[in-house]
Amino acid sequence: MRSPLENFRLQSPLHLPDQLHHFATLGERVGEKTESQGDKEAMQARFPKTYGQPCIEFEPGKRESHASLRVGVVLSGGQAPGGHNVILGLFQALKELHGESHLYGFEGGPAGVVEGNFSELTLEVLEGYRNMGGFDLLGSGRTKIETQEQLEAAKKHVEALELDGLVVIGGDDSNTNAALLAEYFLGHGCKTKVVGVPKTIDGDLKNTYVEQPFGFDTACRVYAEMIGNIARDALSAKKYTHFIRLMGRSASHITLECALQTQPNVTLIGEEVAAKGWTLTAITDYLAAVIRKRAEAGKKYGVILLPEGLIEFIPEMRLLITELNSLKVSGNNIEALSREGKATFESLPESIQRQLFYDRDPHGNVQVSHIATEQLLSHLIAKQCSDFHPVHHFFGYEGRSAMPSNFDATYCYALGFAAAGLIDGGHSGYMGVVRHLAEAVEKWEIAGIPLTMLMNLEERKGRLKPVIQKTLVDLECEPFRYLEAHRKEWEIEDHYRSPGPIQFVGPPHLCDATTLTLKLEQSPSLCT
Amino acid sequence: MRSPLENFRLQSPLHLPDQLHHFATLGERVGEKTESQGDKEAMQARFPKTYGQPCIEFEPGKRESHASLRVGVVLSGGQAPGGHNVILGLFQALKELHGESHLYGFEGGPAGVVEGNFSELTLEVLEGYRNMGGFDLLGSGRTKIETQEQLEAAKKHVEALELDGLVVIGGDDSNTNAALLAEYFLGHGCKTKVVGVPKTIDGDLKNTYVEQPFGFDTACRVYAEMIGNIARDALSAKKYTHFIRLMGRSASHITLECALQTQPNVTLIGEEVAAKGWTLTAITDYLAAVIRKRAEAGKKYGVILLPEGLIEFIPEMRLLITELNSLKVSGNNIEALSREGKATFESLPESIQRQLFYDRDPHGNVQVSHIATEQLLSHLIAKQCSDFHPVHHFFGYEGRSAMPSNFDATYCYALGFAAAGLIDGGHSGYMGVVRHLAEAVEKWEIAGIPLTMLMNLEERKGRLKPVIQKTLVDLECEPFRYLEAHRKEWEIEDHYRSPGPIQFVGPPHLCDATTLTLKLEQSPSLCT
Repeated sequence: MRSPLENFRLQSPLHLPDQLHHFATLGERVGEKTESQGDKEAMQARFPKTYGQPCIEFEPGKRESHASLRVGVVLSGGQAPGGHNVILGLFQALKELHGESHLYGFEGGPAGVVEGNFSELTLEVLEGYRNMGGFDLLGSGRTKIETQEQLEAAKKHVEALELDGLVVIGGDDSNTNAALLAEYFLGHGCKTKVVGVPKTIDGDLKNTYVEQPFGFDTACRVYAEMIGNIARDALSAKKYTHFIRLMGRSASHITLECALQTQPNVTLIGEEVAAKGWTLTAITDYLAAVIRKRAEAGKKYGVILLPEGLIEFIPEMRLLITELNSLKVSGNNIEALSREGKATFESLPESIQRQLFYDRDPHGNVQVSHIATEQLLSHLIAKQCSDFHPVHHFFGYEGRSAMPSNFDATYCYALGFAAAGLIDGGHSGYMGVVRHLAEAVEKWEIAGIPLTMLMNLEERKGRLKPVIQKTLVDLECEPFRYLEAHRKEWEIEDHYRSPGPIQFVGPPHLCDATTLTLKLEQSPSLCT
Repeated sequence: MRSPLENFRLQSPLHLPDQLHHFATLGERVGEKTESQGDKEAMQARFPKTYGQPCIEFEPGKRESHASLRVGVVLSGGQAPGGHNVILGLFQALKELHGESHLYGFEGGPAGVVEGNFSELTLEVLEGYRNMGGFDLLGSGRTKIETQEQLEAAKKHVEALELDGLVVIGGDDSNTNAALLAEYFLGHGCKTKVVGVPKTIDGDLKNTYVEQPFGFDTACRVYAEMIGNIARDALSAKKYTHFIRLMGRSASHITLECALQTQPNVTLIGEEVAAKGWTLTAITDYLAAVIRKRAEAGKKYGVILLPEGLIEFIPEMRLLITELNSLKVSGNNIEALSREGKATFESLPESIQRQLFYDRDPHGNVQVSHIATEQLLSHLIAKQCSDFHPVHHFFGYEGRSAMPSNFDATYCYALGFAAAGLIDGGHSGYMGVVRHLAEAVEKWEIAGIPLTMLMNLEERKGRLKPVIQKTLVDLECEPFRYLEAHRKEWEIEDHYRSPGPIQFVGPPHLCDATTLTLKLEQSPSLCT
């Protein structure tokens, strides 16, 4: 039994940019050769076939016929709203190119490609996933296709299926993997073109060409809905300080966007903490000072946002975690820590000490994402503030598989067309993108960028590896500047803003707009 | 800076039932005398002035003139979506009765009535709260007006303001308080009529006349949106078992409604646990069996709903908590517990043991609402299930102050008219209600029921007190029967249903419908 909204969204038509109304006739405009983000020579050596390819744009053309295509698709990594619509767009685009095209879905993430676990996707099946959240059509997984055996197994399966293309829907790691696959296939005489699609709710797969990864819009809206509700509750009950931790371990884009949407009293941005070298003591003192100032103004309540990864941005916590990891400390030998490490450790509440000691992953490392930073902070603040009543929240799973917003639904559908266009053009080692996202859908344009253009070499487990750079929050960017310009005012006065639930029907500014982050980046004047 | 949806909702017109289009001309139809829920003689002795009054209905009439009215309003207890619209409806209704009527808002809950803390409410101020969540216009509080001094202070302030009426917007406790105030005012020559309005997200203030308290619809929708998202995520990631605890300490209505909306694998209903005497071991074994059966079917994930108050419904936990409270146990003297109490205590994980021992309220009692029952259960299950990865959620503050759904927005507006109509008719000790809520808004009708009709005597802190009976989940009612009929199927097969975010614009079945609980209660056939 579907819900009324599920039925409604299953039947809601998907819109296309003007450019894609005549998708099969589009021609290509080939740009200049490109370079990697860094380590150019080393990257070229590692990607002899796919390095330095040009960007591809699409323009009105007069093509009349296309060959039929056989394409595989795989969902990779964490869920993001809109994944199913990428697959629908890909299917629709392939059928528009040639009615005899076929689309196959690999199941359970990249492991499905290595193991040859797939099924053909038909319109009948796909129609049941139109505009639906989650990745449940195919499932997903985090396997990396890296070893010679894995690469060879993947090649065997795509060749057995005679695939012209393989579309990898994923984040930075998954698209790095797509680049490796593309290079391997090209270097080993396999005709399958590999194309990535930029997905991540964390928002850290972003650059001049990828204006916003898909899923970021919807996930932030779900979190912002909850935060807005909680802020209104804080303002009404006047007795709790809500600490709200949000997904985003490496980058604080979600926290920043949610702060712009909801205007909380304090927002901690990991990148700022790192850049300014704020210690745990400095953060605690700052928060305690705000809480005391608010109490003096008769406001014994508040809303504080922080990113999941905050703890790793705090210098002395980072040091302590590194020491604990390298010492593989267990039992009671905290004496093995450095003087600084020991001092930090001893300042922590017992529950966090225990977690650092005992809650280790199979490699003996501290499980950073398990640490309830919001509880750590409120424990430390409680020592400085009386009549302080913290309430803790963590939002993550609530937003990853939400029904995509109109923006993400449409964007993802267009991304599917971009991936199909690149494969049809014979391009491998590319990412399909959609540009001009801050404008009306009609004006959006699909394009392709070489994956190597997003990459450089970084150390992973002691070895240099080619990876797509994660884009952190830029402290010079308009979204952060906006927060910086307003946060003093939001600190003591209450300017809570409640975005409310995602709307699918109604005036465009209610239903179709995307994030304030993108708006501020693209046209700062829109937000004044 | 308001959000686009806030601005939209601030400007959305409020609809009225047909009956209220000519509100000022309505006549009254007086019903039969009523009786209390129990303890009739004792209740009559305690409420000599207000006991046994008749129900009041309204019908088309020909009234032409009304006197101007001076009315006070107070928000009491926890937030519930729609409170501001009750006040707007009350204001609008008073102005329709007589243009010179005045409305005063008491601030900070019932304490504002005792302390005379109020301000006049104007249309200009109220328009800024139309369709907004929260209780921030006036704030709220949990003070009970019980002592002679408090009652007298309240009387002094309503008399100083020359109030014709006082409207108490609250749950069972607050309406009990309204009944006491009404009786006191009538018995002490004070003309102020006291009228209650049924509010509570918990859904436990409900009976033949109060079909559903306001706020229940919206709060459940917010929780169900999150649960639906999490279920879709579970189905996609295929690796986590999500334990979702929901607000509702005394009654499990929220959990039941959310289960009907989202169809999780297991739903624990406190009232069923109590009725069937399920022990902690029985519950753990049952959950572990489901988790193992699902794992055997290749499903290492799941969604389990439980109410906040579950732990108090479990017989041996209830015994242990009672013993701990009466012994005021601290330190290590668990030897003072009974043999059963000690055995239960020793079966608990250390973190829960510590919580039971040390986390006491000012009276030395165990803080039951702080106990993370979902963590207790998953700790116990982990001993029986390998490869079991629980994730814990608690939803409460996320829904209490959400923007009211169309249903709650309209319902609350009509409740304001009901309260005004009762005061205008000179009725005190009443609750304003709206009937036929499962039908279209046009057919709704306002009415008034005597508060004593909802009451009986119950022991509180060793003394018999008149209280409004809390309505628990009835295991014979259609909503529970529906769960019972379907839960076996939902247990292993996945029938997750995703209600999605609350919609304000679009076809009525998307935007205006209310809870499945009410639909099933009123017309079971609607849900088959």
